[in-house]
Amino acid sequence: MKKLINSPDTVVADFLEGMALAHPTSLRIDHENRVVLRGTPKDEGKVAIVSGGGSGHEPLHGGYVGRGMLDAACAGEVFTSPVPDQMQAATKAVDRGAGVLYIVKNYTGDVMNFDMAAELADAEDDIAVRQVITNDDVAVEDSTFTAGRRGVGGTVLVEKIAGAAAEEGRSLEEVAEVAERVNACARSMGMALTPVTVPANGKPSFELGDDEIEIGIGIHGEPGRRREPVASAREIAEKLLDPILAELPGEGPVLLMVNGMGATPLIELYIMAKEASQVLAERGVEVSRHMVGELITSLDMAGCSITLLRLDDELTALWDAPVHSPALHWSADDIQE
Amino acid sequence: MKKLINSPDTVVADFLEGMALAHPTSLRIDHENRVVLRGTPKDEGKVAIVSGGGSGHEPLHGGYVGRGMLDAACAGEVFTSPVPDQMQAATKAVDRGAGVLYIVKNYTGDVMNFDMAAELADAEDDIAVRQVITNDDVAVEDSTFTAGRRGVGGTVLVEKIAGAAAEEGRSLEEVAEVAERVNACARSMGMALTPVTVPANGKPSFELGDDEIEIGIGIHGEPGRRREPVASAREIAEKLLDPILAELPGEGPVLLMVNGMGATPLIELYIMAKEASQVLAERGVEVSRHMVGELITSLDMAGCSITLLRLDDELTALWDAPVHSPALHWSADDIQE
Repeated sequence: MKKLINSPDTVVADFLEGMALAHPTSLRIDHENRVVLRGTPKDEGKVAIVSGGGSGHEPLHGGYVGRGMLDAACAGEVFTSPVPDQMQAATKAVDRGAGVLYIVKNYTGDVMNFDMAAELADAEDDIAVRQVITNDDVAVEDSTFTAGRRGVGGTVLVEKIAGAAAEEGRSLEEVAEVAERVNACARSMGMALTPVTVPANGKPSFELGDDEIEIGIGIHGEPGRRREPVASAREIAEKLLDPILAELPGEGPVLLMVNGMGATPLIELYIMAKEASQVLAERGVEVSRHMVGELITSLDMAGCSITLLRLDDELTALWDAPVHSPALHWSADDIQE
Repeated sequence: MKKLINSPDTVVADFLEGMALAHPTSLRIDHENRVVLRGTPKDEGKVAIVSGGGSGHEPLHGGYVGRGMLDAACAGEVFTSPVPDQMQAATKAVDRGAGVLYIVKNYTGDVMNFDMAAELADAEDDIAVRQVITNDDVAVEDSTFTAGRRGVGGTVLVEKIAGAAAEEGRSLEEVAEVAERVNACARSMGMALTPVTVPANGKPSFELGDDEIEIGIGIHGEPGRRREPVASAREIAEKLLDPILAELPGEGPVLLMVNGMGATPLIELYIMAKEASQVLAERGVEVSRHMVGELITSLDMAGCSITLLRLDDELTALWDAPVHSPALHWSADDIQE
């Protein structure tokens, strides 16, 4: 195993220290509880948004903490849910009297632990909590760590749009409603060129031949739909988009997100963005917003995922609203630029 | 070879189409000349900044086109200099009467071609051009494609700071002077965990054993100083920083840039940022600015580089100035955040 780490045991603590050093004013990190917080607290009376999950998907979730997005992110061990105590600490740190929304990817451990944290917040701290479970992956029903569909790339979109709704001063019910709507309108599918190596295991989590790719892979290397021979970017775009389009509800323009799995060069992601845009144009789907980059990853896996979100005017306006986090950042005057 | 491409022959054309689609308002791409331009031209009377080089180092250079940084970037074939005609087209597209600064990484082909473009701009178009050659890599004197030191991570810092100086309305001489000063105050060194595979070759450009790393590697996979057994993040930080510190001029605080080589997960870059910060603290060097991410890459090579820039008040203020490019983005109000 070749990785830039000190020891498998210290990966999460070390990376959080690095985040704190790299973002000394915009982030504040509670190292004891492994919670990433905004450097300056948000205003009184605003709904707070908390997410989190296993580490290894960076920049998700800590990289999305900032004005217009998350208030806190809980970091579990690599590919392992954080525990309810972490979530309770995050909840207490960010609540400003308007309640807290949890954004939870649909993996059994995360769902169970965030559920317990919501009960603790209610019973011990008298904080109102609502939860939204993301489950946008069309690849498989049920999986290694999941009952039902997995939460993947759509989670980034839920965090951005719910964050914008909270920043506008909407109520907890309203922010939860829009988060649910984004999840309901988002569909994703991923593929791998290479397997992922978890530091504690030291070996690839599955085997993939020199001429093989896996279609429908999960963000922990969970099995996908099928293995296939290497294909062109154009063919891969079709293999991901056709199942997504078959499940995408509604009509009208979409947001296209092309995401790298952690070890995918940006030049390849731009090529995938071109091919995905062309496939969508041929299918009669208008793309009105784009996002390309490594946004929700799987350690050192090479590959990509595509997410589509069906937009309406409200979701578009919330998407365009300013965001100031380490990993997603734009200003009001960028939109017209 | 497993890559998200259609064909080795179309990599650059396809990626530029993807960039255009992904950034429809902030960028404009001259596909005939393979030049990335700002979506909205800059003001009359400002110095324009042009960079460019072989593709495969994304987001360098096209991802740094935008307000506060570059006006244009010329994209060559993978690891191959663009030609003078591209640079001339870029120069004519961006000149607004105040002259043009070329920022050129020190590789023989780039230096020769930008030199010819400067002559063409003067002789045929009557545009004043100044050039700054970056050569911040301390690993080796002379290399596969270079006489003298290679231009690597420091180039990103030169582009950012010269861009801010131009945005302030400084003259061509003044912008060139500050760019020269950044280059003179920046030192870098890189290392590889894995080799790089150029699409047209289809095979890794060099061999590296399962337990081997290469210290001092270039951004095209050019040989470094030595091969060594796998080491910890802490040890690698020392192996890169000690040669950098030995050559870093001046006194006072530094900017620390931790860069991924293209296939390096963000979690590992944050771990390297922590270790580098700690090594610098132990060496008595204050880090006053940080930047962590994949900023100047080498296709699918895994590994990292570290760049230090000795800061003074002027360089710090120019660094903090707003920047609005696809890959580097911050606003005036982020600094205090």
